[in-house]
Amino acid sequence: MTAHEWAKALQVGDGFRLADVDPRSTPGYRGGKADGRRDLAAGLEELNTLQERLFAESRVGVAEDSVLLILQAMDSAGKGGIVRHVVGGVDPQGVALTAFKAPTPEELQHDFLWRISTRLPEPGFIGVFDRSHYEDVLIGRVRSLAPAAEIERRYDAINDFEAQVAASGTRIVKVMLHISPEEQKSRLMERLERPDKHWKYNPGDVDERLLWDDYMAAYQTVFDRTSTDVAPWHVIPADHKWFARLAVQELLLDALQRIDPQWPAADFDVEAEKKRLAAS
Amino acid sequence: MTAHEWAKALQVGDGFRLADVDPRSTPGYRGGKADGRRDLAAGLEELNTLQERLFAESRVGVAEDSVLLILQAMDSAGKGGIVRHVVGGVDPQGVALTAFKAPTPEELQHDFLWRISTRLPEPGFIGVFDRSHYEDVLIGRVRSLAPAAEIERRYDAINDFEAQVAASGTRIVKVMLHISPEEQKSRLMERLERPDKHWKYNPGDVDERLLWDDYMAAYQTVFDRTSTDVAPWHVIPADHKWFARLAVQELLLDALQRIDPQWPAADFDVEAEKKRLAAS
Repeated sequence: MTAHEWAKALQVGDGFRLADVDPRSTPGYRGGKADGRRDLAAGLEELNTLQERLFAESRVGVAEDSVLLILQAMDSAGKGGIVRHVVGGVDPQGVALTAFKAPTPEELQHDFLWRISTRLPEPGFIGVFDRSHYEDVLIGRVRSLAPAAEIERRYDAINDFEAQVAASGTRIVKVMLHISPEEQKSRLMERLERPDKHWKYNPGDVDERLLWDDYMAAYQTVFDRTSTDVAPWHVIPADHKWFARLAVQELLLDALQRIDPQWPAADFDVEAEKKRLAAS
Repeated sequence: MTAHEWAKALQVGDGFRLADVDPRSTPGYRGGKADGRRDLAAGLEELNTLQERLFAESRVGVAEDSVLLILQAMDSAGKGGIVRHVVGGVDPQGVALTAFKAPTPEELQHDFLWRISTRLPEPGFIGVFDRSHYEDVLIGRVRSLAPAAEIERRYDAINDFEAQVAASGTRIVKVMLHISPEEQKSRLMERLERPDKHWKYNPGDVDERLLWDDYMAAYQTVFDRTSTDVAPWHVIPADHKWFARLAVQELLLDALQRIDPQWPAADFDVEAEKKRLAAS
């Protein structure tokens, strides 16, 4: 499967129903865990070459392209592992990671997209959002953190915003990691059983878990309203961590392959510089 | 050699003379390139454990510690390789990297430490500065970018600033990667000979190279004036990339070992949460 075929297989299209996706499935991939890990390692080299070319083009000012990976998921679905094992394989000099928490009082005084707009990737960078403006129509909706009319307004506002971002040269890759409630229970239990994982556990995690169906309904609405041509959603079955990591790597490869960055030509006289350097 | 012994061996102390440091040496280390690479890989696991503990402590609010690695060097000395091969081994979620370029017009309207102060690491993070406020007393001095009295003022301002930063809980690790002019010539020539490296070459690199002795004098003054107890300088011979990478990893390990972060205790009733989760 090419990276582009991965992207197509995971993309949210017309009539998509989240309830039909099996979190334990590995759509389009025939291998198992060992194959997945091998393919992840194999893909890293291409990812790094493409990333360095993208960065190089931006440094000499010949292109304005960037990539923005948006990660959304229920607790413990594996966002951290994606950052660590997929994004972590890329040169940190070309990555801009932002983990969005509950909004600060200052952030709440602005429109919900304000804090997002300040963290968009510069040309040449792979930006990564660990949570995003989608929290404002997910927990925002489930917990009624804003009036219904304001939540409703936000879907169109998001589409307008993302269309502008895409038009400025950013490839937007939106990912929901989809785990089952059973798998989440197992992962949260592990955090409770291991003292070195206690810090990752929050009693509020169970409170959110009890609203599982409401969250799934809120995600379904997000997909219905904000999966657009320039910024489609991808739902990745995530009960198998190795599959989710491989799938996100393929989505990044697809975005970079479509940009197709090239090593920029020298904007100086190479032979003259060789002589000047040799004489120095 | 322990990490602490590495730090001591590389630290700038009274009477230090940069001219006495051989950029091809590997002080205190008896191994060669293969040993160095093996030891770098071996150190990564401890670095990651310490980093995660540091991060964990900050997340649950039991500690305010952070680390700040400041990298300074002549062009092509290997800062990028340090970021990629040493910092790149750490979970990106715990790293905050800033590459400082020539100041923008907005930055120039403020004191030279203003832009630095906005990029200090938050508690729990390893901050990395690729170039820093020291540019303002290095190229700033060599190129007379500010009046002599202003340059002179900056050394004390830096010491006051770093003392405040250290007092707030940040371990400052200052590193100069020291290459020879011969090694630099070889590395710049490689950039000219390889089309995929042309983007890394700038004709201005040779202009700076012609001022080598002035830069070394400016570094010597930096060491004389700003190597303090709370923020000492370390000069790392860097003609051997493998040695420089290993040495920087050891300096980070030393800083983290001195913080000695521990897995934080749960601030909730673990057994009660297990029951609540099981019933959910």
